[in-house]
Amino acid sequence: MHSVRFTAETSSDGVVERDFTVGEVPGVLWSSASTSDHAPLVLMAHSGGQHKRAPGILARAHRFVTGCGFNVAAIDAPGHGDRPRTAEDERRVAVLREAQAAGAPLGPVVVGIHIDLAARAVPEWQATLDTLQDLPEIGAEAPIGFWGIMQGTGIGVPLTAVEPRIAAAVFGCLGHESLTEAAAQITVPIEFLLQWDDEHIERQSGLALFDAFASKEKTLHANSGGHSDMPGFESDSATRFFARHLGRVATTPA
Amino acid sequence: MHSVRFTAETSSDGVVERDFTVGEVPGVLWSSASTSDHAPLVLMAHSGGQHKRAPGILARAHRFVTGCGFNVAAIDAPGHGDRPRTAEDERRVAVLREAQAAGAPLGPVVVGIHIDLAARAVPEWQATLDTLQDLPEIGAEAPIGFWGIMQGTGIGVPLTAVEPRIAAAVFGCLGHESLTEAAAQITVPIEFLLQWDDEHIERQSGLALFDAFASKEKTLHANSGGHSDMPGFESDSATRFFARHLGRVATTPA
Repeated sequence: MHSVRFTAETSSDGVVERDFTVGEVPGVLWSSASTSDHAPLVLMAHSGGQHKRAPGILARAHRFVTGCGFNVAAIDAPGHGDRPRTAEDERRVAVLREAQAAGAPLGPVVVGIHIDLAARAVPEWQATLDTLQDLPEIGAEAPIGFWGIMQGTGIGVPLTAVEPRIAAAVFGCLGHESLTEAAAQITVPIEFLLQWDDEHIERQSGLALFDAFASKEKTLHANSGGHSDMPGFESDSATRFFARHLGRVATTPA
Repeated sequence: MHSVRFTAETSSDGVVERDFTVGEVPGVLWSSASTSDHAPLVLMAHSGGQHKRAPGILARAHRFVTGCGFNVAAIDAPGHGDRPRTAEDERRVAVLREAQAAGAPLGPVVVGIHIDLAARAVPEWQATLDTLQDLPEIGAEAPIGFWGIMQGTGIGVPLTAVEPRIAAAVFGCLGHESLTEAAAQITVPIEFLLQWDDEHIERQSGLALFDAFASKEKTLHANSGGHSDMPGFESDSATRFFARHLGRVATTPA
């Protein structure tokens, strides 16, 4: 059983940022400088080729902390960020780059990558959650949410399917049949994001994944525009979604 | 040219409610008791069988006024509320009731009703807008939004297609091919609501209508549940949508 080891701490704009490792997995924990104990914890999984402190993760993590007083944790996925790549990781990245350069749809290419990554990342996320719950300021009482789009959905759907501690999740920008079975096991509230004109993800496969969740409460937000055009107001919407389901009141964004 | 005639005024919870008529069309204008001049105006079209002061209209109108200081106007559609029904109106209602009683899909039945109603209601809305803009507290400067789902979309899409004063619109819970051409003429920001498990509206036809809008900015919100299960938080989302596009800051809901 691992325990969390903190390696660095900084603070800015009322957000405390602590680097940590759990075993060999490096992560970041963001908290409010004025947080109450047992505030909800949002787990954030980054996209493919990115890392725990990618701009999209960092901005949303700050929004969740300042908007709702949540704790937010991100870890590097296997072969990403500060973690070593296996020869197989390198081979998969090369195939992906080739498809990107050719302008080919990425859906079929990422399926294999996500299945492999999820098999490695799901137990890492569960170990991370175990150790974060050992922290007195989080504890077993803190409600848990999950946020991850694209590769974060490829990992997050299998994770949420087997992890009863996750009480609400934001997914999106992905759809493939390999996730249908896991999605059908998920019953917690879901907010699902799609880009209506996504050049990489086939629209019907994204809609089919949204349809597959067994959740009584699920909402699809589909915005016009391509893969990288997601509007900023979806961060505020995710904040309100977690506030509704994890038990906090969201403040109006500045 | 008609002018607006006010027939009654009440006030509660900071919302002033004024009954009016424009020609033979009765309406209601809700305003903030502390409103600033030239605040944005949201036009609200009710659903089939309802009227200008139906609970869903009244609650959202109050939300728009108290949340953003908007003015909100609703009128009775032809053959609805305080307006007389023609023999043709009566015949159409009977056909609709029969389909409802039989549990048949309502989409094909309402197409004809909506085409007929839109032909009568679009000029009424334009005349109403003309006369409301003559009011000194509204004027030609107030940005205009439109809100209407179901029958309100059946009227609102043709209206918005020909009415350049409407700068943003919320539609939804409807889809039929007769609206595709009008939707393709609309370029203003759209928020489009669907119930994912709607027993009356075919999902694919709703998605096709969303797809048809030419708007660069459009967002689909699809929620799990049947025709009458739309979650309350969509009213807050519509408030924020109008605030973004009509130039007001939404306050956090109470």
